[in-house]
Amino acid sequence: MISEKKGVQQLIQYFKAWGVQHIVFSPGSRNAPLVVSFANDPFFQNYVVPDERSAAFFGLGIAEQIKAPVALICTSGSAVLNYAPAISEAYYRQIPLVVISADRPSEWIDQGDGQTIRQKGALANFVSIEIELLENPTSKDSFWHNECQMNEVAYRLNQPAKAPIHINFPFTEPLYGQQATQNLPHVRKVHFAQRSEALNLGDLRNLQEKWQLAKKKMIICGQMPKNGPLNQLLADLSKDVSVAVLIENTSNLSHTNFISCIDRTLNSIAEAHIEHYAPDLLITLGGAVVSKRIKAFLRKQDIAEHWKIGHEFQTMDTYQALTESIALSPLSFFRQFLQDFKLSPNSRFGARWKQLDFLVQDKHRFAFETLQYSDLTVFETLLDYVPENSVLHMANSSVVRYCQLFEPISSIRYYSNRGTSGIDGSSSTAVGASVGDPSHLHTLITGDISFFYDSNAFWNKHLQNNIRIIVINNGGGGIFKIIPGPNSTTQLADYFVAEQKLNAAGICSTFDINYYTAKSLADLDRLMPSFYTFQDNDRPALLEVFTQEVNNEEVLQAYFQKIKVVDAPLLLEEE
Amino acid sequence: MISEKKGVQQLIQYFKAWGVQHIVFSPGSRNAPLVVSFANDPFFQNYVVPDERSAAFFGLGIAEQIKAPVALICTSGSAVLNYAPAISEAYYRQIPLVVISADRPSEWIDQGDGQTIRQKGALANFVSIEIELLENPTSKDSFWHNECQMNEVAYRLNQPAKAPIHINFPFTEPLYGQQATQNLPHVRKVHFAQRSEALNLGDLRNLQEKWQLAKKKMIICGQMPKNGPLNQLLADLSKDVSVAVLIENTSNLSHTNFISCIDRTLNSIAEAHIEHYAPDLLITLGGAVVSKRIKAFLRKQDIAEHWKIGHEFQTMDTYQALTESIALSPLSFFRQFLQDFKLSPNSRFGARWKQLDFLVQDKHRFAFETLQYSDLTVFETLLDYVPENSVLHMANSSVVRYCQLFEPISSIRYYSNRGTSGIDGSSSTAVGASVGDPSHLHTLITGDISFFYDSNAFWNKHLQNNIRIIVINNGGGGIFKIIPGPNSTTQLADYFVAEQKLNAAGICSTFDINYYTAKSLADLDRLMPSFYTFQDNDRPALLEVFTQEVNNEEVLQAYFQKIKVVDAPLLLEEE
Repeated sequence: MISEKKGVQQLIQYFKAWGVQHIVFSPGSRNAPLVVSFANDPFFQNYVVPDERSAAFFGLGIAEQIKAPVALICTSGSAVLNYAPAISEAYYRQIPLVVISADRPSEWIDQGDGQTIRQKGALANFVSIEIELLENPTSKDSFWHNECQMNEVAYRLNQPAKAPIHINFPFTEPLYGQQATQNLPHVRKVHFAQRSEALNLGDLRNLQEKWQLAKKKMIICGQMPKNGPLNQLLADLSKDVSVAVLIENTSNLSHTNFISCIDRTLNSIAEAHIEHYAPDLLITLGGAVVSKRIKAFLRKQDIAEHWKIGHEFQTMDTYQALTESIALSPLSFFRQFLQDFKLSPNSRFGARWKQLDFLVQDKHRFAFETLQYSDLTVFETLLDYVPENSVLHMANSSVVRYCQLFEPISSIRYYSNRGTSGIDGSSSTAVGASVGDPSHLHTLITGDISFFYDSNAFWNKHLQNNIRIIVINNGGGGIFKIIPGPNSTTQLADYFVAEQKLNAAGICSTFDINYYTAKSLADLDRLMPSFYTFQDNDRPALLEVFTQEVNNEEVLQAYFQKIKVVDAPLLLEEE
Repeated sequence: MISEKKGVQQLIQYFKAWGVQHIVFSPGSRNAPLVVSFANDPFFQNYVVPDERSAAFFGLGIAEQIKAPVALICTSGSAVLNYAPAISEAYYRQIPLVVISADRPSEWIDQGDGQTIRQKGALANFVSIEIELLENPTSKDSFWHNECQMNEVAYRLNQPAKAPIHINFPFTEPLYGQQATQNLPHVRKVHFAQRSEALNLGDLRNLQEKWQLAKKKMIICGQMPKNGPLNQLLADLSKDVSVAVLIENTSNLSHTNFISCIDRTLNSIAEAHIEHYAPDLLITLGGAVVSKRIKAFLRKQDIAEHWKIGHEFQTMDTYQALTESIALSPLSFFRQFLQDFKLSPNSRFGARWKQLDFLVQDKHRFAFETLQYSDLTVFETLLDYVPENSVLHMANSSVVRYCQLFEPISSIRYYSNRGTSGIDGSSSTAVGASVGDPSHLHTLITGDISFFYDSNAFWNKHLQNNIRIIVINNGGGGIFKIIPGPNSTTQLADYFVAEQKLNAAGICSTFDINYYTAKSLADLDRLMPSFYTFQDNDRPALLEVFTQEVNNEEVLQAYFQKIKVVDAPLLLEEE
């Protein structure tokens, strides 16, 4: 059965033609024509998440895993406004979420009817296009109008740079009429011919020349999904000792030559040596970079060339030095760039970075022998237990920063909501990911504020046994004790840290999540094996680690002191 | 101490000059210049609510109680997007919330920095104005620019029709610098001379004439705060037997002549008698009307004249019959209209409505003797226990509809989020109200879906002992079993009702709320007295009433059958 509204039938047909399969519903009645149509069709994988804010992040988590568009469907009224936080995150991460907001007929907007608000423009800042469909086209032209709108959506979904899309869909009553799935309107799907990606030869030669001339070459990789072939190319490049490759765990890259804990290494660059660590050619790829320090470091340097490689945000000038914007995928670019191109190391810039990095790595290993129980030592212990070949979700804001202090594990996929860096949907995103990729074990590490903020993440029937949640409960927003500033105020506890004495037990009992607690590293060593093994009752498990009693920020400062290589030898060019 | 940013100093000075005193913060660091300035100043009453979505509804609850503007302050990034649901509610209810979103400097928008998104336009659909302030004016002109912007805000706050306002405030680092509160910038506050409200004499005479000619006069009162003088005028008017005055409990009006349970009475109008109950002059005042039936009833009639009285939404045409829009407060209008005007009843239209209403009232009293335990009988029992002189908050969507079936109690103030009728913030609004009006006892009645949706309402340190929460847990969104349509689908349980087996115990233990449960009317009779008395531990209390086992919609239908006056005598005009 399918809604008898012809416009809905068209939408369904297009979604099937495009292969958009995953649909996240939030309950309501105005969206009934969509409910009855999607839910009756076995082609679709449907989910129900009552809180729209959580539903949208849940959909984002699925979309990241399946690397394909996911639809979000809500009822009329303020429902769609609750999508905005996740849609802004998706926009800055190029994740193709397709919002379908049921609406009242437009003539009833602002006429005093219930659940009838101005929905147009609700997500305007963060979608590539907003369209409106006709629920009941009758003439050839009105069917064609809907087709054109849907082809417009298809065009956006086919662009290499993805973005969320908003389809507003007004419905008149009756909403529940259904018919058999025969004689559905014909849909005409436009095929968008794929262009092959390649750089113009003149530009290529020009860039290769500039590369040859540059001595201090730095490649910074921001957030991206795992990409084996790209990893291989970058690993090959990193063998050129004039090239420093900087990554973060969210880059999902791995090689012994890469500098993978940027802040740790930066911490040991002596003031007098800065110029030797500053690039003259900076190449960036991927999304957001977590390290504030590297951004601050590079913005202070005089960088001759900055090449930004990627389809997205082509004028984004994060390092205030952009000279070349290359709208190719990094893989296409480096493949073409390195084909028939002989690397000829002309400096020891990369080796210099790597030497310092190795020295810091040694110190890092020993530092933990003397550090007291704290957020930092908890992370060190926990990360050892995260299983191979699993997925790790890091909440904002101190969690993702702590995790950057440890070498990434190459078999683990790392995720974090770094598009807007909000705390509003970390848990829902992780839950969505665990549902979108059910064949892997997922771990979410979150702070207590993020956890309570998004506790509705667990309010749905899709939560499975393949997710483990670890809450680092330091009694508030620990980040505000770490960053300079809030400490200088008398409002630290209330207005920045938002100190609290809550625990996660009640949330766990509400949503039937197995609950573990730890207050020491010994607790962790004792609990972690059973925490990660199969839970008898086939439910997820949550471990709450309490660290309120410790001065976490002092321990972190002590760590940075301990790993600092004083008077590091400066690897200079061979004379 | 105060922020050393001159723009912040100006803002603070203006807020003090205007008397805007209540400030709801959500933690962050970009808003630090505002935190240190407001929090250090004893003039302001500051609150901290971590979840911005909840914070905005919390502020709305305060603003409703104090009948004055309330400011909401958040950090940069997706934070401000979480305000949107409450801001849309405030827009459709004319509640003056002043949003101040801290922002990054505009040159950093879309340049790949953390927590930096497009904040401009974030609330554009639901604010009367959006301004941006300069953090550090230096020249005379730049100080003047900020002054003009603030005077613009003042102008909006002075309008009789209120609306939310958005102030975007970009800050550069350092954020934490402070100075003594001396030598602050001078502020020039514009006084907006108050116009006296009166209708042009010609128009007045014209309306009075029309009134004289109209035989069937109906006044419908939508949502509004208690208003003694208006209540008196309407009571006087209702003594004219040609006038029917229809109210709801959200109108906060009360008189024995008023028809106060509209749906109950409408239910007994025989098809053949409809024309005798349809008005030829319809007068409406106040905000939203809950009853869908009265709207549907009136839209089908041929109404000659519809006068809309009020400053807000002057072309809103809810009954598709608007002929006269009168931008005066209802009190001013009726005072002027009735002065020197002799009412001369020219029909028995009002008496006819009232007679039918009395007949239904009788039936209503007896109906409960035979109805089984269900949502409906729970409401009947509960409403008897709500203390005199207290405040009752009704969540959407079935709760507010059930409550309309019982006569309002005149000493109680009734509230509900009927601007957008969303379920997203009912609890937060009630909590805010209980904080904004601490000298009264507040009761929130909510369904289970609304309760879980907005459980972060209880995640703040301002929650006090003067609030009682009653959760009617019927295992899902009961409204969808009541309205026609969803029942006809195979998706009823999952996609509409969102059936669930959760209970509120875990949320209560998390937020330290005393927890009661009931499964029968006898339980209620036993518990309610202690529930409403002072709680030893000075904490709020929550009562969860379980009604999942019952077919609530059948009981409701049976009720409407039982109260139906069959063959009601039709009070006709005297011959």
